[in-house]
Amino acid sequence: MTVRAGIVVTGTEVLSGIIADRNGPWLSERLRERGVQLAHIVVVADRPGDVRAALDFLARERVDLILTSGGLGPTADDLTAEVVGGFAGRAMVLDEALEERILAILRRNRARWRSYSEEAMRAGNRKQAIVPEGATILEPVGTAPGLVVPPASGDGPLVVVLPGPPGELRPMWEVAVETAPLREVLARAGTLEQRMLRLFGVPESEIALSLRAIEENGVPLDRLEITTCLRRGEIEIATVFPPEAGRDYDALVEGIRERHGTTLFSEDGASIDELVAGLLAGRTIAVAESCTGGLMAARLTDRAGSSAYALGGVVVYSNDAKVRFADVPESLIERHGAVSPEVAAALADGAIGRFGAELGIGITGIAGPGGGTPEKPVGTVCVSVAHAGGEREDRTVRLPGDRAMVRERTTTVAMHLLRRLLLRLGTPVS
Amino acid sequence: MTVRAGIVVTGTEVLSGIIADRNGPWLSERLRERGVQLAHIVVVADRPGDVRAALDFLARERVDLILTSGGLGPTADDLTAEVVGGFAGRAMVLDEALEERILAILRRNRARWRSYSEEAMRAGNRKQAIVPEGATILEPVGTAPGLVVPPASGDGPLVVVLPGPPGELRPMWEVAVETAPLREVLARAGTLEQRMLRLFGVPESEIALSLRAIEENGVPLDRLEITTCLRRGEIEIATVFPPEAGRDYDALVEGIRERHGTTLFSEDGASIDELVAGLLAGRTIAVAESCTGGLMAARLTDRAGSSAYALGGVVVYSNDAKVRFADVPESLIERHGAVSPEVAAALADGAIGRFGAELGIGITGIAGPGGGTPEKPVGTVCVSVAHAGGEREDRTVRLPGDRAMVRERTTTVAMHLLRRLLLRLGTPVS
Repeated sequence: MTVRAGIVVTGTEVLSGIIADRNGPWLSERLRERGVQLAHIVVVADRPGDVRAALDFLARERVDLILTSGGLGPTADDLTAEVVGGFAGRAMVLDEALEERILAILRRNRARWRSYSEEAMRAGNRKQAIVPEGATILEPVGTAPGLVVPPASGDGPLVVVLPGPPGELRPMWEVAVETAPLREVLARAGTLEQRMLRLFGVPESEIALSLRAIEENGVPLDRLEITTCLRRGEIEIATVFPPEAGRDYDALVEGIRERHGTTLFSEDGASIDELVAGLLAGRTIAVAESCTGGLMAARLTDRAGSSAYALGGVVVYSNDAKVRFADVPESLIERHGAVSPEVAAALADGAIGRFGAELGIGITGIAGPGGGTPEKPVGTVCVSVAHAGGEREDRTVRLPGDRAMVRERTTTVAMHLLRRLLLRLGTPVS
Repeated sequence: MTVRAGIVVTGTEVLSGIIADRNGPWLSERLRERGVQLAHIVVVADRPGDVRAALDFLARERVDLILTSGGLGPTADDLTAEVVGGFAGRAMVLDEALEERILAILRRNRARWRSYSEEAMRAGNRKQAIVPEGATILEPVGTAPGLVVPPASGDGPLVVVLPGPPGELRPMWEVAVETAPLREVLARAGTLEQRMLRLFGVPESEIALSLRAIEENGVPLDRLEITTCLRRGEIEIATVFPPEAGRDYDALVEGIRERHGTTLFSEDGASIDELVAGLLAGRTIAVAESCTGGLMAARLTDRAGSSAYALGGVVVYSNDAKVRFADVPESLIERHGAVSPEVAAALADGAIGRFGAELGIGITGIAGPGGGTPEKPVGTVCVSVAHAGGEREDRTVRLPGDRAMVRERTTTVAMHLLRRLLLRLGTPVS
């Protein structure tokens, strides 16, 4: 049986884009793990009417479960508990024992708030102990208690009320799933499998065609929820399905593999960064980059443990720097221009030579918005990945988008060239 | 008159937490600038029923305007245009001229996809040219056209349909605001002023105290919608207010200035990157960085025109690289350790010397998760910003958070030290 859920994220600062919501995505993953289908995430300001409207909307959509985050603090604009109480048809009552427990927590944190009197604290926090009658209390992780609130009428969604700070919400969720009302709802959900394929170097429209062709060839896709998505220049095919559709999924993968074997680089969800990190084990690498301005080196070093293989890099923006710090022959730049496959290759070789690395990446291009010419428009980037032994992968691409996009996509192209070269080289002799 | 809006973000991969939504927050800021009150952001999967439910919900909430993002691609799960057409009571028709224009774009990108046939492309992309009758077409930035769709009945919200990739959505929004139907809706909104103060080096709780104190001192804050937020190590105080509350806002700024004059670095919303870029005009700079692995150079070069002052940088992860490529004396590393103010200073000087730059940034630290010691725990970072003339700013900090956060915050610390040094140096003699 499908159990459907909705999430309500409250907070003016989230709605207004000032801070990014981290709770919606996190709770979404928790629900999926438990086989619950998430229908909607609604982000609302701290206005009681809007919060109530979001709850009513989800109830009309007949979700079985609503999770809320935020609006449990001591200030006047924190009103989730009260709105949820009204929604569930329950009166608000002061839980005096809870009030004492919150106060005990506050006293412990007292040193940080020396300038406030206990009375001020008490007034500000009594509010947090006023809860819907009959709700299950989730003990505070910070100072705000959470709530599990069943509908008073017995008809309607169960509401789980959680605090806004991710550091409080996450541990409290683990407590919530152990409460009787939430366990009962979750028990009705079957589990769902979730898988991810990644491809690079194929247009999204081509994947659409392939999916159609695979279905026409007799693979039933109706029990697979397939989402294709273009991200950072790669295609992701995410699929969610009930365990009994496992064979259909395998047949889908087989079909994608047949049609896109050369561009399908990950069948288990591993990212290109993870794959490259694994392949780099036992080797060393350095970078000489121009238009990416340090992003390539930063991407290679953003994983813990990358110091085992990443020796370093040079950012050589000017022609002069290319010559002096990456040993690019001046004549090469004069003959072919700074943005040329020849200079990219020389940069890769220069990185190897300078750092004594086994592998080198050279990047030169026009990230824009200025600097383009008819022959070399903005977005033209030359990438070279070389091995000290002479093997190499070179590519000149024209990337779409603005300066930031061109810079980021360039690093993705380089990661894929690097993977290809590493696969050709095989396991290092240690 | 209050104009209310809702945003519908479509995409199973956003709902499921696989990718973070960047469009909702961005559009939210655009609406606020234009005095439109945002009521809800609804994130939905690519299921036609759920997308329609979100639109119906917002219509019942009587919003004047709905913005949608995503679901405009060539694949079967991209269904926003059709659902919006149904919602607005409009038939879907093939716009043949639009189809030709999309095809022309695809042909231009053809070089990238040589191996795929034109027929495949055509089939996959005809779908994108099927639009609600009577809608205003927004020309594709990528390959997907956007739409401005008024309700056929004349009663109901105007829907602006935008593509999912932020690089396409953002420029298309600028085009959408020039269309007659959207202009008409936006014209009904009163204007709201929106201002931003930025501070660095003060805890958020201190700002909360100051706001209370300022109010107690007689500055009325009730017409100011103030949101404080900790972002990338800086405090942002965003305030929205009707023009007639301008004096209240000025008094608020005066109060913040009095209490936090040394940490308030921006009163007009300018970011530290913008301020530094302005101050760097006519000068040159280079970087020698360890734990940030290229992020510092990337941050200095992420602005168009940065090649005028950014000469380049070296990423010196290993001790050996610090000695060989940034001229850090080996004895200095032995005596003080690689993570020390002395080595940071030597890196800054090395960057100056190597690149012949006027200014140098040196960074060394422990980004984690490994490598910490009791004296130098994870998050310990030494930053040095030096001028060839001998002036400098040095700082050792202990930054909170995970590896990615430590690396990012380190670049923020360096940007602020750089600003301070540049202010001390004054206008360059040209």
